[in-house]
Amino acid sequence: MTTAPQASFFAGIARRGLLFIMSSPSGAGKTTLSRKLLAADKLISMSVSVTTRKPRPGEVDGKDYYFISNDAFETMVADGDLLEWANVFGNLYGTPRKPVETALAAGRDVLFDIDWQGTQQLAQAMKDDLVRLFILPPAPDVLRERLIKRAQDSSAVIAKRMAEAAHEISHWPEYDYVVVNDDLEKAHQQVFAILTAERLKRRRQLGLAEFVRNLTKEL
Amino acid sequence: MTTAPQASFFAGIARRGLLFIMSSPSGAGKTTLSRKLLAADKLISMSVSVTTRKPRPGEVDGKDYYFISNDAFETMVADGDLLEWANVFGNLYGTPRKPVETALAAGRDVLFDIDWQGTQQLAQAMKDDLVRLFILPPAPDVLRERLIKRAQDSSAVIAKRMAEAAHEISHWPEYDYVVVNDDLEKAHQQVFAILTAERLKRRRQLGLAEFVRNLTKEL
Repeated sequence: MTTAPQASFFAGIARRGLLFIMSSPSGAGKTTLSRKLLAADKLISMSVSVTTRKPRPGEVDGKDYYFISNDAFETMVADGDLLEWANVFGNLYGTPRKPVETALAAGRDVLFDIDWQGTQQLAQAMKDDLVRLFILPPAPDVLRERLIKRAQDSSAVIAKRMAEAAHEISHWPEYDYVVVNDDLEKAHQQVFAILTAERLKRRRQLGLAEFVRNLTKEL
Repeated sequence: MTTAPQASFFAGIARRGLLFIMSSPSGAGKTTLSRKLLAADKLISMSVSVTTRKPRPGEVDGKDYYFISNDAFETMVADGDLLEWANVFGNLYGTPRKPVETALAAGRDVLFDIDWQGTQQLAQAMKDDLVRLFILPPAPDVLRERLIKRAQDSSAVIAKRMAEAAHEISHWPEYDYVVVNDDLEKAHQQVFAILTAERLKRRRQLGLAEFVRNLTKEL
């Protein structure tokens, strides 16, 4: 017979964290859904990228980005310290490997707001830890309205933005899950359910074998 | 431009249903969790088995089981009309194929309360449509108490029941998800999240390609 009181036996199962990727065309509500997910759950946090671009007013180093030099960035690439990186109009952006691996090993999850290219790179680096979610807008009108909402934009800028959105959307078949953001609260519940379910996958619950061993020791 | 009002564009994505399997040792709360899931969601219903055993008082044909003859059962086996079947102490039990396939094609889900052997057979028949969940009790005391709760049982009966529970539990690594039923309401939320997430898997949402085509037609 066990002498420890029953209530203390189950204290959760140790698990490996996961990388939760949300991609979408701009205007599908991804940023709002990311914020709601971060607010709803303490075990997931946003990945902070390194970048060589200059900080914009109000941006905080270590929170919005880690602002680093071109030399430092290139050293990280050479040392394999970035899980993925990209050159966007001459500025370099990348995801540092170490904080992600530390989080996963500690059973914490990391949220990524990246496009299909970053997703493909991450998939190569971290295959089994990845959960890929694509967010779609509910209707063409919604998408178009959001893409043209800044009235001062030229039609050339708008056309370019639409082409980018169409291209981003064309990569939806590379994702594990798809949520249509028709109703913000419903979409949030769906995103939260995906995170909850993925944490309950047997293979992520590293402490299960030991838990079952102790559970059945005296049967 | 579309002429239809935006609100009518998104009417949900047609999807293929799934087979939701819950297994556990007896006494882990699986029956209660099944009932709660059926009550919480209208698109999932319990699979009704065929059996050759006689109805017990109160059992309704077509609801609890389809009660059929040995000959009828053997014809179903011969015709491939059962997804899985087993002989339990001389009585035959099986899962009819047709209602399951009809449900899946209509985007409805089917809940199965079966053991590891039935799960293995279903996995062979319906691989991609299967979601396998194993429920564990939170502590050895809880498991033992539930296994011996019927005071009139002999120690031989209790020992046999414990051996069966240990054997059932030993198959947990064959499941996709594991939930520890430490708190009934929390476990229910977790089971519900798994169902919600699995429905959002890209490959089950058969209508996505068409939806995306219409969404991006005018970009």
